[in-house]
Amino acid sequence: MSSIETGVRAPSEADAMRRALELGRRGPATGPNPRVGAVLLDPSGDVLGEGWHRGAGTAHAEVAALTDAAERGADVRGATAVVTLEPCNHTGRTGPCSEALIAAGVGRVVVSVPDPNPVAAGGAERLRAAGVDVETGLLADEGRALLGAWLPSVERGRPFVTLKLATSLDGRIAAADGSSRWITSDVSRRHAHDLRSEVDAIVVGTGTALVDDPSLTARNAAGELHGHQPLRVVVGHRDVPDGARLRGPGGELVQARTHDPAEVLALLAEREVRHVLVEGGPTLAAAFLRAGLVDEVHAYVAPVLLGSGPSAMGDLGVATIGGAVRLTTRSVLPLGPDVFVVATVDPHSPTEEH
Amino acid sequence: MSSIETGVRAPSEADAMRRALELGRRGPATGPNPRVGAVLLDPSGDVLGEGWHRGAGTAHAEVAALTDAAERGADVRGATAVVTLEPCNHTGRTGPCSEALIAAGVGRVVVSVPDPNPVAAGGAERLRAAGVDVETGLLADEGRALLGAWLPSVERGRPFVTLKLATSLDGRIAAADGSSRWITSDVSRRHAHDLRSEVDAIVVGTGTALVDDPSLTARNAAGELHGHQPLRVVVGHRDVPDGARLRGPGGELVQARTHDPAEVLALLAEREVRHVLVEGGPTLAAAFLRAGLVDEVHAYVAPVLLGSGPSAMGDLGVATIGGAVRLTTRSVLPLGPDVFVVATVDPHSPTEEH
Ligand SMILES: NC(=O)c1ccc[n+]([C@@H]2O[C@H](COP(=O)([O-])OP(=O)(O)OC[C@H]3O[C@@H](n4cnc5c(N)ncnc54)[C@H](OP(=O)(O)O)[C@@H]3O)[C@@H](O)[C@H]2O)c1
Ligand SMILES: NC(=O)c1ccc[n+]([C@@H]2O[C@H](COP(=O)([O-])OP(=O)(O)OC[C@H]3O[C@@H](n4cnc5c(N)ncnc54)[C@H](OP(=O)(O)O)[C@@H]3O)[C@@H](O)[C@H]2O)c1
Repeated sequence: MSSIETGVRAPSEADAMRRALELGRRGPATGPNPRVGAVLLDPSGDVLGEGWHRGAGTAHAEVAALTDAAERGADVRGATAVVTLEPCNHTGRTGPCSEALIAAGVGRVVVSVPDPNPVAAGGAERLRAAGVDVETGLLADEGRALLGAWLPSVERGRPFVTLKLATSLDGRIAAADGSSRWITSDVSRRHAHDLRSEVDAIVVGTGTALVDDPSLTARNAAGELHGHQPLRVVVGHRDVPDGARLRGPGGELVQARTHDPAEVLALLAEREVRHVLVEGGPTLAAAFLRAGLVDEVHAYVAPVLLGSGPSAMGDLGVATIGGAVRLTTRSVLPLGPDVFVVATVDPHSPTEEH
Repeated sequence: MSSIETGVRAPSEADAMRRALELGRRGPATGPNPRVGAVLLDPSGDVLGEGWHRGAGTAHAEVAALTDAAERGADVRGATAVVTLEPCNHTGRTGPCSEALIAAGVGRVVVSVPDPNPVAAGGAERLRAAGVDVETGLLADEGRALLGAWLPSVERGRPFVTLKLATSLDGRIAAADGSSRWITSDVSRRHAHDLRSEVDAIVVGTGTALVDDPSLTARNAAGELHGHQPLRVVVGHRDVPDGARLRGPGGELVQARTHDPAEVLALLAEREVRHVLVEGGPTLAAAFLRAGLVDEVHAYVAPVLLGSGPSAMGDLGVATIGGAVRLTTRSVLPLGPDVFVVATVDPHSPTEEH
């Protein structure tokens, strides 16, 4: 008897979903595909197989779990598949998971998050049409957290954009002479570096590229390069000079010779980028905000006062206080001496309408 | 046998000190005198009398406790006095407490915080000279917390200065057209109002007085005036116009016709002000910082971006990042959507030396 009929969910399915979430987290946070985990249970709640997605070009989580069960010699007919994301219904680099589950004789599928992808969606429908019992929404908050930027990126049809700001308490990013090393503490800088290793691309304007000569690599505390290096994207018409650090070891360098943030994101979407980190400078940051193309702000605020020097934010076209760009604070974290604030921009109110 | 000889402190003395701290908190946080509490114990640890200081011109805590004991008909000869601040040794508005304790025949005095006041200090010495057993430093952190701004104000020989900043995430205090109602949330504004009722004076520059026409009163959530109203101090040469709110209900209006923050504090010290709240604007805030006369910064940072408009801080004379004014973060508190940061300025490094 399924839980849809009784209203009572066997505790083992929630446990299995927690396990599936844990498995999903083993997959890569970057790349075009979502992190997904799957657990196969027999009717008494015992685990028959487990799997997770290891990145584009490899088996989806459901197929990995079926393979694991087969290797264990388990009979999965009538089993329950507990999956963190709705099984796909399209043939991409791999075949549709819905068909694989049907072919294996799975009797019930429990899903955390429905697939937002218009191309891949329909897995639940296909399964139900084949007589499989499907339930959706188990531990959905945790399921969405596992998917990270992938989910809003698919929902919005463009990469998810995180804007990073690192400022003094009076909103400045450099002293009067342009010197800015360092305003925030090394604790904050290390924290910011950790995010670099979780995004697909880092974006800066040519101003920052030319003035700061940054390397825009993801490094660990010892200064060594992480295994994953995001694309390095420079926006603007000017060239990145030959000897620039951006041309040294690190991710591929992409020059986006435009001033239109939407064009930058379209170019990156074509490269299957899901999560973009905009690291400035103030001109580019303002352009993304004005275009309504910032989803989330990561602000590192240091207990430092400068009283002069360039501001963190270029002109937003805000004339009066009623037109201010208002964010929703999601978290506040003391980070050494600094404060780290994560705030989101309401997707339905682009700045231009203010 | 005293704890100094045995190294063991009777638990009842620490309990009595906690009670004395609690009594002390009943006194006024503002005004020239510190908050002090006192408890008299008989040798078996029973309470003979309790007292606290109710403000300038009234009995000191020790004398209030002796009076309480007398009213209870208790014999205080040989008793232990547990006091949050070292008993004074000088004749001000009241006689010296050290003499009162000696005259009453108290045998032992336990003190939390030694008196930093060069005029009033010497109480412990006087008591010891009279054969009274004196111990100092019991729950000293709590004792200092009770004293608040009074302690550093006496140590520094000038009012303690808190600088309040209320800014957007990009460090601005108004939009391009000067409008600024409101950047921070009502939760933050109420929090800031509560501090107003705990200071002796609020200070602004003439720029803020003329542009904003503020009332600078301490009000509760319902908008009603608190019982205590701080002095309202306007710094600068221009006049506060006749119809200004600053001339309406609230604390006394003081015009400090100078540009020198040290002169402002000297003038306020003469009026026995211990705690000053500088509420801006940017020109005056920068002048206090440059003079090394800010002890503590209260920064309310709102999740708002403006991109233009006046900055929170005027010119600090900082040319390069090495000269930045670096503060020490004391606390970080999410306040509704905003972040409230308390940070202190090292008293030994005035900005001018940077
Ligand atoms: N402390 C920090 O966290 C931090 C972070 C980043 C930057 N910074 C500082 O920021 C300063 C650079 O500021 P910035 O504003 O010049 O840098 P930027 O925003 O990186 O670059 C601005 C340039 O980008 C191009 N661009 C791209 N899109 C544009 C658009 N929509 N509108 C206008 N121009 C566009 C233009 O160059 P083309 O002429 O080439 O098209 C423009 O001059 C440096 O001093 C750097 O140190 C500090
Ligand atoms: N959002 C907020 O939290 C907040 C808070 C406060 C102010 N504000 C805004 O700040 C703006 C006013 O800025 P402001 O900088 O003009 O205000 P201000 O700092 O309040 O006043 C500046 C004036 O104070 C006098 N002054 C006193 N000491 C001085 C010194 N050491 N050096 C120079 N001048 C000194 C001068 O006037 P005299 O010519 O009269 O001597 C000077 O013009 C207003 O728009 C207000 O809305 C915002």
